[in-house]
Order: sequence, then structure tokens, then C-alpha cells
Amino acid sequence: MEENFGVLVLGHGSKLTYNKSTVEAVANMLAERMNDAIIKTAYLNMDSPTVEEGIESFASTGVKTLYVLPLFLAHGTHTLKDIPAILGLTDGQRRTTHSFDDRIVDVVYAEPLGVDPCIADLALKRLKEA
Amino acid sequence: MEENFGVLVLGHGSKLTYNKSTVEAVANMLAERMNDAIIKTAYLNMDSPTVEEGIESFASTGVKTLYVLPLFLAHGTHTLKDIPAILGLTDGQRRTTHSFDDRIVDVVYAEPLGVDPCIADLALKRLKEA
Repeated sequence: MEENFGVLVLGHGSKLTYNKSTVEAVANMLAERMNDAIIKTAYLNMDSPTVEEGIESFASTGVKTLYVLPLFLAHGTHTLKDIPAILGLTDGQRRTTHSFDDRIVDVVYAEPLGVDPCIADLALKRLKEA
Repeated sequence: MEENFGVLVLGHGSKLTYNKSTVEAVANMLAERMNDAIIKTAYLNMDSPTVEEGIESFASTGVKTLYVLPLFLAHGTHTLKDIPAILGLTDGQRRTTHSFDDRIVDVVYAEPLGVDPCIADLALKRLKEA
């Protein structure tokens, strides 16, 4: 990863509070794992800040690279169409730039959580707790 | 967990293939971790089998308990309203029964993935890969 970077953790958003609280909790856990990063959150729908507001919130931070992390379980229309459209990414493109008033930063679009053994381990934990 | 049980892994469903392939991959990983369980998948929207079809698919399996596992990152309207309504659960209720033609099975509704350090670890992995 690049030095002097920020991470915008993107959630789906919800009419209820659980998506936002989950995204914020995971963002806080990420912050514990990345002491040198500025980590913020934003939401695609129904919650604020919006994705655009989330990006602009890095304007005064001095980061050179902004990682956009979609906190979604799987790819879908949101991660492949809606978010790329907001970031100005064409199909399949993962890197672009964003112009703030006084400078240009690199933007890197990360993959969603996706398939990983840890998801199955966590699912098994939820089954055992049920 | 109960003996002689099944697990219905519920996905959101999508117009694209990624949600279904992710849910199926996690269900396969769960099967590796639970040799004694019958594990099937179903989808709330846009994919099949539906939740109702997924439940009925256990009719001939002989399971005594059916765990319904919502493979969602966080609670929201889908996990707190839509799925419980299909299962016949009232607000906050986690257990009910389902009548097949020849017998009644216990139904246990598990929690979604939710907040866990492993989600932050996986998110960090995706950032490092980006």
C-alpha cells in the first residue's frame, strides 16, 4: 500500500441503524490495524455522509492516495456500477485520480470482502450461537 | 447445536452472478466444517431457489432442526422484517416450527455475520491486495 494514505470505508446504508454501526465498528477496527492511515466512512444509500461527501472529507488531510473499500459481502450492481460511476471509473478500472482544490490524489478502488475461509468460520460461529 | 440438523444459507440475491456464487462458496466451506449437516442455499430476491423453496427442499431430508443463516453483513430490513415474515417469526423471535406434510421441524433463525475482528482482518487483506 502507498504511504500517506486514507481509507474510505463504504457501506450500503440502511433505514435502520445496523449497517452504519457495523461499518463504523469495522472502520474502527481497521484504524487499530493501520495506525498510519486516516480512515473515514460513507454510505451509498439512506445514510450520510454520502460517497461524494466522504471523498471530499479527505480534502484537507494531505493524503496522497485514497483507498475506497466497499464493505459489501459480494460484488453486485452497487460495487460494479454505482460506486465506480461515482468515482469516475470505467468498467473494470480500479485506479483513478480525484482533484481537490489544491491537489490531485490517487484513488484506488479495493475489492469487496468476497469469499474467504474467515467468512465461513464466522458463519459457523453464528450458527453455534443460535 | 442440535443433532440431525440442516442449514439454509440465505443470500440477498442479485441480478449479477456474484452474490449467488459467494453464497454457494461459503455454503460449501460450511459443509466442510459440518460433516453431519445438510446444507442448502436460497435467496431473498432475484435468484432462486426462493426462501420458501429452500425451506421446502428439506422436506425429505429427515432433519429435526433447520437453522436459517442470513449471509448478510449486518442486520437491516431484510434480516429483521422480510426474512422473519417468511419464516413466521414475530419481532425479535428466533425460534419457530415448520410443518412439512409428514412432520414438524424446529426452525432456528441465526444472526447475520455482524461485527467481528475477522471482518476487519479480511478488509485489511483486500486493501493490501488493491
